[in-house]
Amino acid sequence: MPNYNAPLDEIRFLLYQCLDVEKILEMCSSGIGADVVDAILEEAAKFAKNELAPLNQVGDKEGCKFNDGEVKTPTGFKEAYRKFVASGWNSVPFSLEYGGQGLPWLVAIAISEMWNGANMAFGLCPLLTQGAVESLTHHGSTEQKDKYLAKLISGEWTGTMCLTEPQAGSDLAAIRTTAVKNGDHYLIKGQKIFITYGEHDFADNIIHMVLARLPSAPEGVKGISLFIVPKLLEGLGTGGLGLGKEMPSPITHHPTPNDLKAISIEHKLGIHASPTAIMSFGDNGGAIGYLVGEENNGLKYMFTMMNNARLSVGVEGLGISESSYQQALAYANERVQGKSVGIRNLGLGGENLSNPTIISHPDVYRMLLTIKAQTEASRAIIYSVASAMDYARHHTDDKTRQINQDIVDLLTPIAKAHATELGFANSSLAMQVFGGVGYIEETGIAQNLRDSRIAMIYEGTNGIQAMDLVFRKLNLYDGRLFKSFVDVYINEQNIEPFNSLITATAKMQELVKENPKQAGILASLYLRMFGIALGAMLLNRQLEIAKETKNINPDYLSSKIESVEFYNKFLLPEINYIAGIIMDS
Amino acid sequence: MPNYNAPLDEIRFLLYQCLDVEKILEMCSSGIGADVVDAILEEAAKFAKNELAPLNQVGDKEGCKFNDGEVKTPTGFKEAYRKFVASGWNSVPFSLEYGGQGLPWLVAIAISEMWNGANMAFGLCPLLTQGAVESLTHHGSTEQKDKYLAKLISGEWTGTMCLTEPQAGSDLAAIRTTAVKNGDHYLIKGQKIFITYGEHDFADNIIHMVLARLPSAPEGVKGISLFIVPKLLEGLGTGGLGLGKEMPSPITHHPTPNDLKAISIEHKLGIHASPTAIMSFGDNGGAIGYLVGEENNGLKYMFTMMNNARLSVGVEGLGISESSYQQALAYANERVQGKSVGIRNLGLGGENLSNPTIISHPDVYRMLLTIKAQTEASRAIIYSVASAMDYARHHTDDKTRQINQDIVDLLTPIAKAHATELGFANSSLAMQVFGGVGYIEETGIAQNLRDSRIAMIYEGTNGIQAMDLVFRKLNLYDGRLFKSFVDVYINEQNIEPFNSLITATAKMQELVKENPKQAGILASLYLRMFGIALGAMLLNRQLEIAKETKNINPDYLSSKIESVEFYNKFLLPEINYIAGIIMDS
Repeated sequence: MPNYNAPLDEIRFLLYQCLDVEKILEMCSSGIGADVVDAILEEAAKFAKNELAPLNQVGDKEGCKFNDGEVKTPTGFKEAYRKFVASGWNSVPFSLEYGGQGLPWLVAIAISEMWNGANMAFGLCPLLTQGAVESLTHHGSTEQKDKYLAKLISGEWTGTMCLTEPQAGSDLAAIRTTAVKNGDHYLIKGQKIFITYGEHDFADNIIHMVLARLPSAPEGVKGISLFIVPKLLEGLGTGGLGLGKEMPSPITHHPTPNDLKAISIEHKLGIHASPTAIMSFGDNGGAIGYLVGEENNGLKYMFTMMNNARLSVGVEGLGISESSYQQALAYANERVQGKSVGIRNLGLGGENLSNPTIISHPDVYRMLLTIKAQTEASRAIIYSVASAMDYARHHTDDKTRQINQDIVDLLTPIAKAHATELGFANSSLAMQVFGGVGYIEETGIAQNLRDSRIAMIYEGTNGIQAMDLVFRKLNLYDGRLFKSFVDVYINEQNIEPFNSLITATAKMQELVKENPKQAGILASLYLRMFGIALGAMLLNRQLEIAKETKNINPDYLSSKIESVEFYNKFLLPEINYIAGIIMDS
Repeated sequence: MPNYNAPLDEIRFLLYQCLDVEKILEMCSSGIGADVVDAILEEAAKFAKNELAPLNQVGDKEGCKFNDGEVKTPTGFKEAYRKFVASGWNSVPFSLEYGGQGLPWLVAIAISEMWNGANMAFGLCPLLTQGAVESLTHHGSTEQKDKYLAKLISGEWTGTMCLTEPQAGSDLAAIRTTAVKNGDHYLIKGQKIFITYGEHDFADNIIHMVLARLPSAPEGVKGISLFIVPKLLEGLGTGGLGLGKEMPSPITHHPTPNDLKAISIEHKLGIHASPTAIMSFGDNGGAIGYLVGEENNGLKYMFTMMNNARLSVGVEGLGISESSYQQALAYANERVQGKSVGIRNLGLGGENLSNPTIISHPDVYRMLLTIKAQTEASRAIIYSVASAMDYARHHTDDKTRQINQDIVDLLTPIAKAHATELGFANSSLAMQVFGGVGYIEETGIAQNLRDSRIAMIYEGTNGIQAMDLVFRKLNLYDGRLFKSFVDVYINEQNIEPFNSLITATAKMQELVKENPKQAGILASLYLRMFGIALGAMLLNRQLEIAKETKNINPDYLSSKIESVEFYNKFLLPEINYIAGIIMDS
């Protein structure tokens, strides 16, 4: 069974040396110091290794069982989730006011990398709850917050995002689920598909965040509203429920089931332990739902969930990349075969010329270094966006907050799409390192390939990320987002290799206005180019910092040198060919 | 359930317009004309569509069942195989002398594309039998040919290639299976893994081609011998079996089981309908085996099986590419979503701006054209190699035969590795066209992703193909192979875009001698570059021919124009970045 060890050296280097987590902790006023963060990271690494990783293959093999509206998760998952909640892991990034730990997103994302590296299907449950917490925190009423936030933050209840409908898919304008006002609540009717953890046995209640349309709503995305639709209603009757206003009742505290149910769960390529439900709302008159914010403003609230979730899906790609690297490296260091040609492998273990393991073969070395460099680039990108998120939320200076929000908005689609493309590519490369053994399910790497593939699709397909980047983000505020990005990420020292990104960006901004079809065809390529260039910027900066860091672990330093040199030589040049295509368009 | 329609228009265009199959038929003296070939292609297309495609998903879902040494293949497979044999499909490319149809490899490969497009797991069985036929045809004694060839060619018996052992993997020098001489046969003992169709219920007998080592054999690959080890021995006793010399016996015609058995079958990522067995030989004293050719010369005979199989594995990649394209195109033409930006889609169906299907979205168009162009490039490469194979075997002129053999030797690793990389990449792109639905197993495209992945690994991993290309083929006969290639494929009209291939090749030839480690690290990238460039050469030549062809179907012509223009603009430029990396090394 594959093992998983959180890459604590690298995580510490990024948090302490590169991204100054101490400053961020101060900004967040969580009252927590860097030493406590360090202890939290250690504990998270243990939880990932000891509780989640051992269940990963079990979950894949057993999958979830569906029976008459109920879902049984695989052996050990329920218990692990309860330990997860009891240990406070669900509450890491959330508001102190409702029982959260108030830690920066940077720290939360680092921890989330561990859950996903150990067990992506498990990690999806808190990811969805996080979406519900975010939307309620920003758009819920005080009563709604009081009612739902504490239990969602603790993880006693979990959340879902009910967006997709069979006919609508990625086109939310086509949503048909209806909501009709009925006193202080609404009655919801409709079917939602692809609902991650839509039904399960982890928790007492599930809070569905449902997009629906009022009878009077305008067509398209301007007619969508967001509702809280709990699986179990507390108190009695249908009046005033959920807002703490209900009348006393003889059966208060015996929760009433809402009018909703899971119809079935999907048989998927991967993430078998994560139940993907088809949900039916209102078969018996209407599910009770509570409006979030204002009517017809649901799309905006949905994006609060979504943007957050998009970065978190990028983290899934990162987690799988790291796990794939660890599996491939372990195998390559253990499998004896053929003759060595004496390859240099500073960061990858010693060399034994007489009895060489396959790591000595240049092509295996190339594959491992590709996975390693791409994993480190993904991590650099995602942590950088997470840190910008903390600055955007907590910095005292308006201008700094704005610049960082620009960066978050611009880079989120890149972080999501690029890190998930790399997650899949890295798991496939890792399988190639294993050779025939990798194709056998028991080995474990095939699960990474299967699990990682969904991350390129959900929370907005990677094509949609490219459309968001090119058609929305690039020209927003007259191109300000990219200017903010250049100010922060590109300087005189590093401008040379990134000139092509700057000129390609100008070209894309122009094409969006003058030839949108062409811009649409180029968008995914441009996103890839941006992702590769961004990885290079951050990795080269890491290398500078590593060289300046006193008392750095020399093994870590030489490993970082090897990754960055490999990236610069073999991976970065791809941006030139993409730039060529864009400039010739 | 996904459908499959053999791309007959394209296959005909390649065979008749581009590769002059009539001339090849004459060379092969099969006595068959182009009209008969056309009828054969039509019939094969029907068999693929009506008999094999409907079993593809069944086979994936049911898989093979193993019980006490016996394998039960999925519902319908046994019957389909028997129809396949009864219809003569197994015998297409083989010698007339032993009941084959004597058709050119070009035709056989075109037909094999259909089996793989419809049902790759099924197609593997004849692929392995073909390896056994090839090695016996070239290296077997007359008696062995008389004994085995007719039944292998008809498909009444099937063949396997028993090379891999647990400790040896790709390193055949490490093989430990032993063969001890015992009269006119040998006793074989050892374990072999990853034996495709090592045990099954399709046929009466299975002829295992087994690599083993004699007690006196020198170490390494020069001490390997090849043996025929039938599952069932005919006649009685162990003396003189299998060579038609045995004495009459009361129980002749009651076949005696040989001392070999399947221990288990593997649980794999894909190709579930193809049983991958662990075989044990000689648990009760020794399996009876018959030496092929000379002792210690087995590696050479094995490569006769292997080289042939390598091209056929490339065909698997091609078949999956075509199937993935058809599935993605059908979905994109049917799924209504969002607004159209009015994309041009000449070859891909009409446009409906008011109720647009997703084919109107530029990013979907990009994905479909990428799959289409890459599929056509794979086909162009593979058919080109198959035609060179026919010239190398049958042309009357020595020099022409030699040049074509050079081309076959040089391009086989490229055809195998590049077409299988594209098969996997295309199935992943096709899944992306489906979006969330693609991740659900019932849709069918996930099976293509899972099935296609093995083709990058078996018959020599793609890394090993790159090593074969760079370390063996490039400098063979003082670089003659590449010169033969340039003479045939590159001319004054098309040299410009391919100059970078010529200079990169010279650099690689130099690196092999001066810096083999660096050559090893670059080999896979170089192979990719070669594959992309080769695809471009052939597609652009196809376009010239299509434009010159009288009475060409105008839809086919515009579809070809669109593919080639897309390839030139979006795919070919990748060679420049790879050339840059190679030249900077």
